[in-house]
Amino acid sequence: MNLLYGFSFYPEHIYEEEAYQKDLKLIKESGANVVRMGEFCWDVLEPSEGVYDFSTIERAVNDLGKMGIQTIICTPTACPPAWMSRNYPEIAYVDNRGIRRDFGARHHYCYNNETYRGFTKKIVEKIGETFGKNPYVVGFQIGNEFAQEGSGRCHCDVCRGKFVQSVKEHYKTTENLNQSWGLRFWGQSYTDFNQIELPIAPTERDARPLIKSYFDSPSLRLNFERFASDSFIEYFNLQADILKSYTDKKITTNTTGFGTNGVDYFKMFQTADVFGLDAYPDLYRDNMDNSSFENSFARNIIRNEKFWMLEFSIGGGHGLWSGEGRLQPYPGAIENAVMHTFASDAGAVVHFQYKIFCSGAEQLNYALIDQDRVPRRRYFEFQRTMEHLKEHSAVLEHSQVKKADTAILIDYNSLWALRIKPVKHEHSYIGYACELYTALKELGYSADVISWKNDFSDYKTVIVPNMFVICDEAAEKLKAYTAAGGTLVGTFLTAIKDTDNVAISESGPCGLTEVFGVNISEIEPVFEDTVATIDFGSFQGKDKYWLDVLEGKGAEPIGTFANSYRRGEMIVSKNSYQKGTAYYIGTAFDDDCTKKLLDTILKEASVAKAPFTLAKGVEVITRECSDGDLVHYIFNFKREDAHVQAEKNCTCAITGKQLGKSIKIAPKGYIAIKI
Amino acid sequence: MNLLYGFSFYPEHIYEEEAYQKDLKLIKESGANVVRMGEFCWDVLEPSEGVYDFSTIERAVNDLGKMGIQTIICTPTACPPAWMSRNYPEIAYVDNRGIRRDFGARHHYCYNNETYRGFTKKIVEKIGETFGKNPYVVGFQIGNEFAQEGSGRCHCDVCRGKFVQSVKEHYKTTENLNQSWGLRFWGQSYTDFNQIELPIAPTERDARPLIKSYFDSPSLRLNFERFASDSFIEYFNLQADILKSYTDKKITTNTTGFGTNGVDYFKMFQTADVFGLDAYPDLYRDNMDNSSFENSFARNIIRNEKFWMLEFSIGGGHGLWSGEGRLQPYPGAIENAVMHTFASDAGAVVHFQYKIFCSGAEQLNYALIDQDRVPRRRYFEFQRTMEHLKEHSAVLEHSQVKKADTAILIDYNSLWALRIKPVKHEHSYIGYACELYTALKELGYSADVISWKNDFSDYKTVIVPNMFVICDEAAEKLKAYTAAGGTLVGTFLTAIKDTDNVAISESGPCGLTEVFGVNISEIEPVFEDTVATIDFGSFQGKDKYWLDVLEGKGAEPIGTFANSYRRGEMIVSKNSYQKGTAYYIGTAFDDDCTKKLLDTILKEASVAKAPFTLAKGVEVITRECSDGDLVHYIFNFKREDAHVQAEKNCTCAITGKQLGKSIKIAPKGYIAIKI
Amino acid sequence: MNLLYGFSFYPEHIYEEEAYQKDLKLIKESGANVVRMGEFCWDVLEPSEGVYDFSTIERAVNDLGKMGIQTIICTPTACPPAWMSRNYPEIAYVDNRGIRRDFGARHHYCYNNETYRGFTKKIVEKIGETFGKNPYVVGFQIGNEFAQEGSGRCHCDVCRGKFVQSVKEHYKTTENLNQSWGLRFWGQSYTDFNQIELPIAPTERDARPLIKSYFDSPSLRLNFERFASDSFIEYFNLQADILKSYTDKKITTNTTGFGTNGVDYFKMFQTADVFGLDAYPDLYRDNMDNSSFENSFARNIIRNEKFWMLEFSIGGGHGLWSGEGRLQPYPGAIENAVMHTFASDAGAVVHFQYKIFCSGAEQLNYALIDQDRVPRRRYFEFQRTMEHLKEHSAVLEHSQVKKADTAILIDYNSLWALRIKPVKHEHSYIGYACELYTALKELGYSADVISWKNDFSDYKTVIVPNMFVICDEAAEKLKAYTAAGGTLVGTFLTAIKDTDNVAISESGPCGLTEVFGVNISEIEPVFEDTVATIDFGSFQGKDKYWLDVLEGKGAEPIGTFANSYRRGEMIVSKNSYQKGTAYYIGTAFDDDCTKKLLDTILKEASVAKAPFTLAKGVEVITRECSDGDLVHYIFNFKREDAHVQAEKNCTCAITGKQLGKSIKIAPKGYIAIKI
Repeated sequence: MNLLYGFSFYPEHIYEEEAYQKDLKLIKESGANVVRMGEFCWDVLEPSEGVYDFSTIERAVNDLGKMGIQTIICTPTACPPAWMSRNYPEIAYVDNRGIRRDFGARHHYCYNNETYRGFTKKIVEKIGETFGKNPYVVGFQIGNEFAQEGSGRCHCDVCRGKFVQSVKEHYKTTENLNQSWGLRFWGQSYTDFNQIELPIAPTERDARPLIKSYFDSPSLRLNFERFASDSFIEYFNLQADILKSYTDKKITTNTTGFGTNGVDYFKMFQTADVFGLDAYPDLYRDNMDNSSFENSFARNIIRNEKFWMLEFSIGGGHGLWSGEGRLQPYPGAIENAVMHTFASDAGAVVHFQYKIFCSGAEQLNYALIDQDRVPRRRYFEFQRTMEHLKEHSAVLEHSQVKKADTAILIDYNSLWALRIKPVKHEHSYIGYACELYTALKELGYSADVISWKNDFSDYKTVIVPNMFVICDEAAEKLKAYTAAGGTLVGTFLTAIKDTDNVAISESGPCGLTEVFGVNISEIEPVFEDTVATIDFGSFQGKDKYWLDVLEGKGAEPIGTFANSYRRGEMIVSKNSYQKGTAYYIGTAFDDDCTKKLLDTILKEASVAKAPFTLAKGVEVITRECSDGDLVHYIFNFKREDAHVQAEKNCTCAITGKQLGKSIKIAPKGYIAIKI
Repeated sequence: MNLLYGFSFYPEHIYEEEAYQKDLKLIKESGANVVRMGEFCWDVLEPSEGVYDFSTIERAVNDLGKMGIQTIICTPTACPPAWMSRNYPEIAYVDNRGIRRDFGARHHYCYNNETYRGFTKKIVEKIGETFGKNPYVVGFQIGNEFAQEGSGRCHCDVCRGKFVQSVKEHYKTTENLNQSWGLRFWGQSYTDFNQIELPIAPTERDARPLIKSYFDSPSLRLNFERFASDSFIEYFNLQADILKSYTDKKITTNTTGFGTNGVDYFKMFQTADVFGLDAYPDLYRDNMDNSSFENSFARNIIRNEKFWMLEFSIGGGHGLWSGEGRLQPYPGAIENAVMHTFASDAGAVVHFQYKIFCSGAEQLNYALIDQDRVPRRRYFEFQRTMEHLKEHSAVLEHSQVKKADTAILIDYNSLWALRIKPVKHEHSYIGYACELYTALKELGYSADVISWKNDFSDYKTVIVPNMFVICDEAAEKLKAYTAAGGTLVGTFLTAIKDTDNVAISESGPCGLTEVFGVNISEIEPVFEDTVATIDFGSFQGKDKYWLDVLEGKGAEPIGTFANSYRRGEMIVSKNSYQKGTAYYIGTAFDDDCTKKLLDTILKEASVAKAPFTLAKGVEVITRECSDGDLVHYIFNFKREDAHVQAEKNCTCAITGKQLGKSIKIAPKGYIAIKI
Repeated sequence: MNLLYGFSFYPEHIYEEEAYQKDLKLIKESGANVVRMGEFCWDVLEPSEGVYDFSTIERAVNDLGKMGIQTIICTPTACPPAWMSRNYPEIAYVDNRGIRRDFGARHHYCYNNETYRGFTKKIVEKIGETFGKNPYVVGFQIGNEFAQEGSGRCHCDVCRGKFVQSVKEHYKTTENLNQSWGLRFWGQSYTDFNQIELPIAPTERDARPLIKSYFDSPSLRLNFERFASDSFIEYFNLQADILKSYTDKKITTNTTGFGTNGVDYFKMFQTADVFGLDAYPDLYRDNMDNSSFENSFARNIIRNEKFWMLEFSIGGGHGLWSGEGRLQPYPGAIENAVMHTFASDAGAVVHFQYKIFCSGAEQLNYALIDQDRVPRRRYFEFQRTMEHLKEHSAVLEHSQVKKADTAILIDYNSLWALRIKPVKHEHSYIGYACELYTALKELGYSADVISWKNDFSDYKTVIVPNMFVICDEAAEKLKAYTAAGGTLVGTFLTAIKDTDNVAISESGPCGLTEVFGVNISEIEPVFEDTVATIDFGSFQGKDKYWLDVLEGKGAEPIGTFANSYRRGEMIVSKNSYQKGTAYYIGTAFDDDCTKKLLDTILKEASVAKAPFTLAKGVEVITRECSDGDLVHYIFNFKREDAHVQAEKNCTCAITGKQLGKSIKIAPKGYIAIKI
């Protein structure tokens, strides 16, 4: 079996040989075929400057390797050791308020600091030398969860210097900069690039403001977001390039998916071999809506290369975040979630982690095995999951998720712009994209979550949620796509700002009014006391978040206000544009209305649904085998039976058993079906 | 027409001549007769130190002037340019935690810094030279919204030095200071003035605490509030004096009314020509209670001189405060609110602003016209408002709001003292004063919101809400007023502290026990689970916020506890004092009870109501014409019809049309009536 | 009468002789026999460096003494004077974010700073000299409420240096330290002790985080908690040792009981003569549950020595915390609460305070007498309380609270560990212990709240709530206790971590699995949507906070899951261990279930209840007289009558009056009974 299933392992935490041997035995008996190691052990690998000792990790790699267990080796750069922080205080991360982040937690380094990069190069070279050709090593993870916990926007002098330099290179003159960023607002224009200060208002969820509100230039801010993201990418590539000179194994890093959003992953993974991410669904309650959405993103970053789930819930335990402990997995939920991940095109699922930490900030939180090394339910469920995975491996390895008919386009500039200046507290860019994805999923439609920079010309439908920032290239692609016969679905907050986060002085959706056949006439947030009813003829819905009220410029209204002083005004439009059709959805809706609207649109675009009647908490993933056959994985995330009605009689894709048309799936169960 | 109606305009944001010409045309066609310019363009006016270029603003003033549109010119001192912040870092504002506020937002300067004042003088002189005699300039605005966004209490060394000096001058010896401030509490007495540190706990709504609670001396704090307020006044006068040497035009600044409360406006406007303020009522929902209250304050600061509304809502758009976008104006609401402002004795209403900002912290928020320069509903409503304003101008210009029979006295020391040590989270000094004002308004009584330093001897009734800080002068005026036959209404939290924010060692209300005929016996906050019923004989009410339980010293009880262990004890008293009457209202009440109580009191004081039966959301403003005739402006702020019953048959003051006694006013409508 | 009853008095605040004389008179007429003085007047005692002036305090001590009123003298070290802060800036407290706490509030000093300790020594010596032999002085209070308001964890360089030194002394080598703290987690091992930085994430309730989450090492953190606690103890002893050389009077300090929890009081009071604490029950609403629990702790710290309540509610007034004013005492509540405190073995009750402060951060909050020096209800209730206290003094002085049959064990390491990493926001270590105590109290059982380091061998039942941190000594004591025939009651979160805050690699409850006859199998927080029903056969309950699901190793299940996927699994166990019995209660319950469960356990352990049927809001305190007779004090904390049913006919212990078996107690009343 090529699929990798295992967990993180920290041999460097073990002091007694007996305990180590016991762990080896338990790992072997778990059935795991992969472990992940080393992302936090720089202190062990380089106990003092220039002195390296890889024996602990190397021995574990080899011992496990001989048992048939492969290792993903991590570079340890998330945590510079104490001696480095003490001897080179300039490597410290500096927060938005100018306060140094001292040694004592993690991510306490500046990713742009050259001293730190120097130490990074040396340790990565040693890792390359030591593990590059090791037959038991299956791949490399660079660092750990870049930009987590408010560590993604360093404000040190080095960062300021590099940022100023990057601005200077891009804009050449302060005149050009001032005009591009609209800096005459509040008299903020520069006469010298060196006058630029870093933005101060926090955008990271863990950062704290200096005062309650500090009104930075949004253009400075968006450019700084890109700069910091690019700095991480530069730092990633610095490591990747060294590793590539030592190894042919796969190189990746573990992103936080849509959790942190400090780095543009589309850009970062251009030079990686495999996309990696960490995900912590709640294995008791979770309907996996977010996971499903994120997995669609994950499998499309590097197409035709299965992604690696490098950290994954196992359930249970105290929390890292104080007072927020985790529920134990519902019986069967580990297998359910793991198989869902593999069915979503994961090539590896690596639980976090083998044994509960006794010490440190993450002590007592979730792991496969408790601190007493007594195997219990989670361990046994892991074993059973591995057995069943093997039964499914032939199907999973020789198939991949069927390319969807629908793409959902994601854009980091829009994400950041709407984080810098949110329009409504309840609204989030990613949250709304996930709402649309989930509505499709519940209807039985699949969707690929991709960058607008991808080629999306062969999708039947392209949905563009809140693409607030637009550039000529994106606008041209969307127009060309529609002109050629595609069905384009735009939403409120589309095409208002340029890539400097400056609003464009045109009627919105800027550059796309012709394709959508509408102008945005009035915009407005939706408050609880201003919710209006929108009429679609055959159904109605309530508006949500935000309104882009539309003025027809050729489009026909398909959704109009049923009440309020806007009664009769257009809020959802449909336009024929050359060979294609473009819809503009000027507001968000309650779930039911969203589903009816999307169903109407996709039906008209001749998009096919999965041949099942589904329900909330049930998901179908259709995989296409190398012989063209389809296998439908159906998951029941609920804690009660699910009843799925198929269009035709089904058989089990693993056992060949006849299943009829009415299929019952047990709580937290799943099934692979041919129809 | 002498009334000014227009909006802010930012010609310095425009780069293309074509766009500029289009703006001129749109402004002209809007019908506006005034614009406000220049409050944030120091970077343009003085692009580098000592180099001045006023051409952009001057050209716009002249171009618009030739079209018949006048300009209010602002000094640009709210935003020092980047070169100044970089080259003179000592000018930076320092917050309560000692953190410098760097260039990048606005208000990033210390108003006490001499370097900054030096630059200020030079730019203001240039403005005086350039625009002082320009025939198209109608007046000058100094700076912009002093003390906004946590910029009103600088903690830099210069401020500390000046504050220490001012304390030294006032108190002469540390012995005197220690005794005056009661500094032996917590052993805080000084032996040298130089030991004084600035207070740290924040009072500004946008400042952040150092620790959750830092217990400064309230006396230090109140003195620092006055010092900072005086510093702003000094800074204002520094500019005003220069301008006066160049011009005869009106000089003002745009205050934030009761929004920020960092500066004592009664004191600041002693040297100004006209009172200016900014107000942002919600034009969808607003009942205008706060605006009405604030306008009464505004028109009484400089009597017989119409105030200028220098920034005013236009509705719609993204918010400056992230996630807090604004609703579009309800149809008709712009006109409704604007006419309400003029009817309240505004001489100018200047919307914020002409065209939606494309860039900067305020990008995409509200303006007359959208970023695509396409006139839409707000623009058309502006045009219509201007037309109707002209129809009303004869009435409005030749009348002024009739002096009320009732005054509400405001005191900044009490405001600050209750902000420094609030007694109850739900209670605010201004909020409670506004509650009383609103109760009167809904009953058809008008009230003038004035300083206790004004002459209030000719009012029939004087209401003194929460005058927590008392001085001999104020106490004497209140006593003399009552003795001479006035009706004095005091409330809970009256006359407890002196102007050093030290409680007076006497029975409260200190110095006023004789006039009120009561002593305060027990005080107590009112919690949800301790609300008591108060009985007034003919009606009852529920107490709120705070209790001053009263012990009779001659007064008769008119409100007593109907339940709780205080059943029968006095909470509202009435006392005859020489020729007058004094009421002490020992707690706040629900709205209905407040109205019944005030109605009883005012009736007994022979105060006349407007001759209409009103309702919530409807307001009458009675104006007195030069010929003594009265015109009643009645506003319906609701989104439904209002029905007003008049005591006699009415006619429309504009058209002369007969209206009968039953008057229907459309949603967001208004009417001017003679009766 | 040897019982002390009075209030704090601040003669240093008084400037006029007349006022001083009036105060002396009022104090005398109040009937008080004790005052507390001097904790905040260093500025008066040492007006400039090395110049001492004790006349104000000394005169007051003597004047009052001659009236028969004794004084508790405080050292003034909570508030270094301004000249010291200015001239020796190095003495300042530094917060977790590295920001100095300047002069201006209180506690603005570092307790480890040698300069500060030098000044401390000198002033304390002077106090010893001046008051050590004064016949009117009854005792000494050292400092004031150590570690209040976020002042308990100084982060200055001196503290860092001493902490590093203490770590070095304890662990000898970094290897040993790294292993003991498990520092290989996140690569945090040290190669030099000097690399240690102080922990940054705040644990104090008033401190503020640096970023939203900063994940310190919990081992570093717990060691720092102990270090800071020890530093306070060292600082306390530094003062106590000096005083002891001058006086034989009692030495104490006023702790905050379970309010602040910055210092291990068991350890601090080993060298004190009497335990002192401050308590502020709400005299309107309070059911005294927390006070009752805290008093049990207070009277057991130094056994057979009545504790001193050094600050105590008097009710009413503005709050120190802005917007959180205090209710006035319900009529009778002062006496009720004071007698409850004496009945709980207080030897002194000192109200805070004599006269309302006019100035400073605590201005206008609660005192016996208002700022106008007019005696009102609180004063009269004080007088009456004193009269009644005298009537009870014979009984109270010649008896003490009967030793309970049940002990509740408290452990500061567990308290801190659960504060460093809470398991659930709703759960607190002290809160849960108090829940158990209250359940017992309402059933009529008394309990002694003691340290596990006390000898608890002669209790019938020992309850160990959440003893998360375990050491060999504690485990051995618990085992020996049970083996010898005791009834041990453990709860969830018992015996998981060692004293370095590192989880132990054994099955939990670590070291106690044999005595309890169970292993903890799965752990989990309880959320609102995951509450399960637990079945005890004769009753049921709902789980709360946290689950330790149990696996039987000899114990019998007495509580099992009635629903959820764990139906039938054990959550409460009972085990016979040698001569004794051990219960493990794997979760918390609703109040009713907790009572039923504890009643079952205590009945089986033959623990006797008070011979009354009680109810919520009613408490019995049984006192044992020197002749062995029992007197039962019964308190009604409610604002309505309480009806108590006695097992036999009763008589009043003061008057001898026959009371029968049905006893009615008035609102906020109490009675002393013999039965």
